[in-house]
Amino acid sequence: MDRTNSRDRELRERAAAVIPGGMYGHQSVGLLPDDYPQFFEKGEGAHLWDADGNRYLDFMCAYGPNLFGYAHPEIDAAFVRQLGLGDTLTGPTGLMVELAEALTGMVAHADWAIFCKNGSDATTMALTTARAHTRRRVVVRAKGAYHGALPWCTPRPAGVLDSDRSHQIFCDYNDVASLEAAVAEAGDDLAAIFAAPFKHDTFVDQAEPDVAYARKARELCDRTGALLVVDEVRAGFRLSRDCSWSRIGVQPDLSSWGKCLANGHPLSVMLGNDKARKAAASIFVTGSFWYQAATMAAALETLRLVRDTDYLERITALGEALRAGLAERAAAAGFGFRQTGPSTMPLFLFDEDPDLRKGYCFSSEMLNRGVYVHPWHNMFLCAAMTEADIAHTLDAAEASFAALKRQVRDLAPVEKLAFLSAGAR
Amino acid sequence: MDRTNSRDRELRERAAAVIPGGMYGHQSVGLLPDDYPQFFEKGEGAHLWDADGNRYLDFMCAYGPNLFGYAHPEIDAAFVRQLGLGDTLTGPTGLMVELAEALTGMVAHADWAIFCKNGSDATTMALTTARAHTRRRVVVRAKGAYHGALPWCTPRPAGVLDSDRSHQIFCDYNDVASLEAAVAEAGDDLAAIFAAPFKHDTFVDQAEPDVAYARKARELCDRTGALLVVDEVRAGFRLSRDCSWSRIGVQPDLSSWGKCLANGHPLSVMLGNDKARKAAASIFVTGSFWYQAATMAAALETLRLVRDTDYLERITALGEALRAGLAERAAAAGFGFRQTGPSTMPLFLFDEDPDLRKGYCFSSEMLNRGVYVHPWHNMFLCAAMTEADIAHTLDAAEASFAALKRQVRDLAPVEKLAFLSAGAR
Repeated sequence: MDRTNSRDRELRERAAAVIPGGMYGHQSVGLLPDDYPQFFEKGEGAHLWDADGNRYLDFMCAYGPNLFGYAHPEIDAAFVRQLGLGDTLTGPTGLMVELAEALTGMVAHADWAIFCKNGSDATTMALTTARAHTRRRVVVRAKGAYHGALPWCTPRPAGVLDSDRSHQIFCDYNDVASLEAAVAEAGDDLAAIFAAPFKHDTFVDQAEPDVAYARKARELCDRTGALLVVDEVRAGFRLSRDCSWSRIGVQPDLSSWGKCLANGHPLSVMLGNDKARKAAASIFVTGSFWYQAATMAAALETLRLVRDTDYLERITALGEALRAGLAERAAAAGFGFRQTGPSTMPLFLFDEDPDLRKGYCFSSEMLNRGVYVHPWHNMFLCAAMTEADIAHTLDAAEASFAALKRQVRDLAPVEKLAFLSAGAR
Repeated sequence: MDRTNSRDRELRERAAAVIPGGMYGHQSVGLLPDDYPQFFEKGEGAHLWDADGNRYLDFMCAYGPNLFGYAHPEIDAAFVRQLGLGDTLTGPTGLMVELAEALTGMVAHADWAIFCKNGSDATTMALTTARAHTRRRVVVRAKGAYHGALPWCTPRPAGVLDSDRSHQIFCDYNDVASLEAAVAEAGDDLAAIFAAPFKHDTFVDQAEPDVAYARKARELCDRTGALLVVDEVRAGFRLSRDCSWSRIGVQPDLSSWGKCLANGHPLSVMLGNDKARKAAASIFVTGSFWYQAATMAAALETLRLVRDTDYLERITALGEALRAGLAERAAAAGFGFRQTGPSTMPLFLFDEDPDLRKGYCFSSEMLNRGVYVHPWHNMFLCAAMTEADIAHTLDAAEASFAALKRQVRDLAPVEKLAFLSAGAR
């Protein structure tokens, strides 16, 4: 490869001294191929530059936040304008009211909003609201679904107590019988059913929501008085301009949103209906920066673009073109190549690839051709992508499939993903 | 009063429709005098404008985040410069490493840093790290101390389960015997002792940390292998350029910081020593915006000002002048007036004022004279304040004490603070 990485290596060495494990959380590249850069220096539109100045078309979009392009001129101008007036003050500005009005005007089930910072804040608030509303304890949620990284939900529970995770019952996503059994097990103690808008777990094929499953979740909540929570943090505004289960005719009581709500500026929100309003008013939740005005100005501009542009139709069409083109090239190269989930949030996995050695090799080949893809986490399209970007990606893919074909018999095991074949995850 | 509030009233009406209870969290004015504005539109230096354009000298400083002045030119320029380059990307920038180096260089006990967004993120991470390190469960903390608003620590536990709050034992701040008893009760299951840097509870007099108490906390942790956590979220950099217990010779293993770390831009951090590094690397914590680069650029500029200016000496001197001047004017007017806590984070309460009717009246009189003070929460000084601002505040206070004296016999009970006299809080 001809990419340089000396600055990245230097930063990694320095980071190892002052950051535990060198990096933490979802942006650690610990479980990515070794040649993936850890540090970046620039983002513009659909592109990203690593710390050594190498440029990539970025299919991760900051793991979601980048919906309209990095450093978006209008969104960031709205932010900077408000920053000069007032940002984190001794109280909120009128922008908070405007933003709550904008969201409740767009999202069919929503009558009110509570803003926060992390996606985990919004999902945790939803759980607390459901418990306050029902005065019951149990949440039913799907095995493997990600709803945040606080003790009750973090996927790697080091330092977490059994008591932090009590009163949770797990079912299989899209499995009606399993959902019914979990609800039956909760008995008269069911506070909430949590649902991802589609199955977007890591390392495995994604799945669209089954309509019968979604309707059953709604019906079970109606029957028991529990609240239905749809966690749109990752998928919000990439499937719909409304809560995405609107497309299958199911409205939740509460929904959580974040990521691209302000196109990368830190903001998340819990939305809810009138049924849950009193409970939402009864809980005490807050954060030092939850009232920040500049971020709300950026969100208002983001929502204007969501409402007034054809971004959703465009990224959907781009995603479909990408999917069709990849399928064609994978087949031509003779690879079994599964593309799952919505076209705007694609995940691809190779057949017969238990430790992802093919996926790793293919991803590294793409990276070397200036396309940043992910071997085991869903990706994200953004509205700054063009048809030319997709054409470039398909050219890179054709070359990468060919390169993979040359190497496939000699690929070394991926030691750091050995837990996958061991079935440990 | 001659302040207008028509815009505030209009916003409150609209907010009542789309925000549960009209407002939530610590920036709700629900427990402030009725004439306090809920909505603001501008901040500059030490001043704040409400939604109707009324201007105040602001002694709340956004409840802490404003340390160097609202809309600080250099800090916000650093933010905006980085925003144009790249903010929330698919990975961190080198600024994260620089910032971790800057913090570990300034804070004596710190060998590493993990950045996050809310103060609650940092305190919760500290708890999880301590539990991972010790493989034990119990945290000992002081009754009434605020460590965030997640289920395990929120002061108003609607919707929270007993299991969310299990394995916590409470002691009285500054009471060595009570601390020892709590630790004894924890037995061999003690994971951490949490400590506020001083007692900064709401509604009651503040208290500086007792040296014997702080040393005992350290000694008990050393003896049991538990970790000592000092929660500097609220007080950080207003008492010291280091962890504030350094001043009394006690170093924690972990500390949590937030609020003014980036002068109002959303950032918090857990700092820790080498003993806790492996445990910190083992926990899974993350957030969509935790790697945001522009905020780290703002924090680096904030830390430069912390290191290179005499802001701390200046705000301390201003706080002392304010305290002396208020004491003199209160005495002259014949009021028993208690000022407690550090001079840079003052709280004042009137004698014989169980439902705070005197405090409410005085605060409203100050507000009418363009000075925003708080009747029951500690206040904050910032480096944008001047001697002239303090002189103006003392003039306003002299007039407000006189106005209070005229009204004091006829003050109505403060219904919304009736819980204070009832001892319910």
